[in-house]
Amino acid sequence: MSLFEDTIVALATAPGVGAIGVIRVSGPKTYAIVNEVFKGKDLFTAKTHTVHLGTIRDGEKIIDEVLVTLFKGPNSYTKEDVIEISCHGSQFIIQQLIKLLLTKGARLAKAGEFTQRAFLHGRFDLAQAEAVADLIAAENESMHTTAMRQMRGGFSDEIKKLRHELVHFASMIELELDFGEEDVEFANRDDLKKLIYAIKHIIARLTESFKLGNAIKNGIPTVIAGKPNAGKSTLLNALLNEEKAIVSDIPGTTRDVIEDVMNVEGIAFRFTDTAGIRTAEDKVEAIGVERTMAKMKDAAVILYLIDLANDSTNEIETQLKFLEDQTVPYLVIGNKSDSAIPENLNALPKDSIIISASQKENLENLKTSLKVLVSIEDFKSSNTIITNLRHYESLTKTDEALDLVLAGIDNQVTNDFVAMDIRQSLHHLGEITGEITTDDLLANIFGKFCIGK
Amino acid sequence: MSLFEDTIVALATAPGVGAIGVIRVSGPKTYAIVNEVFKGKDLFTAKTHTVHLGTIRDGEKIIDEVLVTLFKGPNSYTKEDVIEISCHGSQFIIQQLIKLLLTKGARLAKAGEFTQRAFLHGRFDLAQAEAVADLIAAENESMHTTAMRQMRGGFSDEIKKLRHELVHFASMIELELDFGEEDVEFANRDDLKKLIYAIKHIIARLTESFKLGNAIKNGIPTVIAGKPNAGKSTLLNALLNEEKAIVSDIPGTTRDVIEDVMNVEGIAFRFTDTAGIRTAEDKVEAIGVERTMAKMKDAAVILYLIDLANDSTNEIETQLKFLEDQTVPYLVIGNKSDSAIPENLNALPKDSIIISASQKENLENLKTSLKVLVSIEDFKSSNTIITNLRHYESLTKTDEALDLVLAGIDNQVTNDFVAMDIRQSLHHLGEITGEITTDDLLANIFGKFCIGK
Repeated sequence: MSLFEDTIVALATAPGVGAIGVIRVSGPKTYAIVNEVFKGKDLFTAKTHTVHLGTIRDGEKIIDEVLVTLFKGPNSYTKEDVIEISCHGSQFIIQQLIKLLLTKGARLAKAGEFTQRAFLHGRFDLAQAEAVADLIAAENESMHTTAMRQMRGGFSDEIKKLRHELVHFASMIELELDFGEEDVEFANRDDLKKLIYAIKHIIARLTESFKLGNAIKNGIPTVIAGKPNAGKSTLLNALLNEEKAIVSDIPGTTRDVIEDVMNVEGIAFRFTDTAGIRTAEDKVEAIGVERTMAKMKDAAVILYLIDLANDSTNEIETQLKFLEDQTVPYLVIGNKSDSAIPENLNALPKDSIIISASQKENLENLKTSLKVLVSIEDFKSSNTIITNLRHYESLTKTDEALDLVLAGIDNQVTNDFVAMDIRQSLHHLGEITGEITTDDLLANIFGKFCIGK
Repeated sequence: MSLFEDTIVALATAPGVGAIGVIRVSGPKTYAIVNEVFKGKDLFTAKTHTVHLGTIRDGEKIIDEVLVTLFKGPNSYTKEDVIEISCHGSQFIIQQLIKLLLTKGARLAKAGEFTQRAFLHGRFDLAQAEAVADLIAAENESMHTTAMRQMRGGFSDEIKKLRHELVHFASMIELELDFGEEDVEFANRDDLKKLIYAIKHIIARLTESFKLGNAIKNGIPTVIAGKPNAGKSTLLNALLNEEKAIVSDIPGTTRDVIEDVMNVEGIAFRFTDTAGIRTAEDKVEAIGVERTMAKMKDAAVILYLIDLANDSTNEIETQLKFLEDQTVPYLVIGNKSDSAIPENLNALPKDSIIISASQKENLENLKTSLKVLVSIEDFKSSNTIITNLRHYESLTKTDEALDLVLAGIDNQVTNDFVAMDIRQSLHHLGEITGEITTDDLLANIFGKFCIGK
């Protein structure tokens, strides 16, 4: 029932003081170990998925009154015998209980070891196991939705379908190798090329989604830029609704890059306040502006603030000209609407947003425009989104191997090379769902989990 | 089955990221509320004390895959219907789940509200309920042992026995009141006095144990004293095994009172490092020493350090003379054994402990002596120890009321006054176990619990 001989134990709930804590035990000796220290019902005679009140004792000494929940393998998370001990949430009691279980023959679980066992016993594939960690780390709606979708197999199904179709062609071509002398063709080369193009199309969509997936995980990088004293820090504070950045009337107050993440309707935006861009009409300063703009290329979105109260129309036009050269999507924001020079309003593009950061006016409008700009429809759709760098890399390698297959067919290289390249692409696809694994890969993946999962 | 109409919900595990989190729901609508959002088995048809895998959904949207554990009242912690939802330990998921349960008709539980319901439904008495909070807060063996003993009713049994015996006499005396004109005596006054003396004896033992109980909770106050540069900070560091106090060769380095708690074989000692006492042979300085010594009266133990390397035998004798006047137990510790002036060793009392704080020599011996000095046998014994100030005050008030009873009997006051004083002592005893309660008292007790307990 278990691939492992040892029984592992760890605290499954968050550390710290709570009403209760849950200690998880998994492995072939789970029942024997817990039954030895549990005074209450004989656990061996109890049914799976039942809960029992009793005490855990070290000899005569009562360590705690607990509830034990029984999961007889394979009907458990790890597919092994599992017992969860729900005790009082004191760190002292939790330590004592775990210590006692260790003396009775369990060993401390490594990070992610329960989930690793679940994976190795076939409960789910590797991409799903990784989604469990993502789900626990989820801090907003979009992270949660993508992780849940991946955990429930959406992504894995797509990968497995691609792999299944490729396997068919690989076997056909390998069959041809057996008849090497006879020049037969079981695998129609045009059909194979069509399939590969179709797969490459899907891979392109998935790898493209990684940019979005990464933004979901870490927040969409959003730079707040503009001239000194345009009100950038004031806007950041207004958006974050707290005094994160030091605000003053003195131009150039912000010297360090200040960042914070805010959820806008379930999407995380990572706002970066920057030092003001000193701008002028002479060339030297213009180059300075351009250099700062170059730094913004890493951003996904730029919020560019124009000082409606102090800039001249001429100064505004200079700034807009530089903005037009940017490849990153941007929003032009006219700030200080409460004291704007009237003709400045006409100098702005029609789709500009006019706000007063200090008065917190029209910020909802700004947020809405921001959401439209990053086309958050993608987040809400049921399209698969790649959030994991490992998956992204495996997909990229698959794509490269498929290019070799296409080149091989076009250049009429021998079948054994074509077959090898197809096998290579299958290998990389298989890494995603864990059909192909190495110990290093598993250690790397599960090492990032928390203890107890 | 429940005294309450509303159904309460809270996170029962510690906040923060863990593998799992447990959300607890209790009240008459528990099953209806959870069943509405749980997709899996119909919970109404499921047996109590069983666990079921499924998903929690908000409409079509899956919030999480969970395990729900069913406790049909009265076989639950609160004696109401209780369901525990074990979900992925993400703060986002926990928030979403609790939010959903609130929209379905539950309300957020107040601190300690589950335990308060358990008490009001008669699961345990008030002293036991308070022990639950103590148990969760327990940080060492002795705190754990006393809380566990109290939770399992040891203390309550003792109080109830006293109360039971007093009730008997109270009824007898009240019966006499009914025959007021006839001068009968149902309650033998000598027996009553004997009983009261016996009860007062037990109360004296219990209130005496409070000093110890308080020390168990907060650490035994232990002052490290001595002349400047005797090595007090070095000893504190050596005991705590970390550089808590700033150490230097310059006498008088320590100006602030530095405190830290250390567990010595399951007993918490709260060590206080003090500024050095400047001592000399003239009277003025001697008074200074005495004044500082007076401050030490609050301590339970004094560790007095003597500088074997720099003090003269004369100086040592002066210090010992002052120590002898102390009412607080003390240990004389000869420090700097590695560079001691030989004749100084003879100047010390026989039971002194010779150490080198800087070399960490003989510290185990010091710890052992410390444990003997605070007679830790009391901690290990099965004697009831009062740890709760509320219990201490109720016992003191009971004792005062009993004194009035005794005085009443001796002064032959009328029966109705004696009866009133006995009732008063019964009232105070009843407050401890919760036979007598007020809303304020309960709010005060359970408000100190954590949410979810």
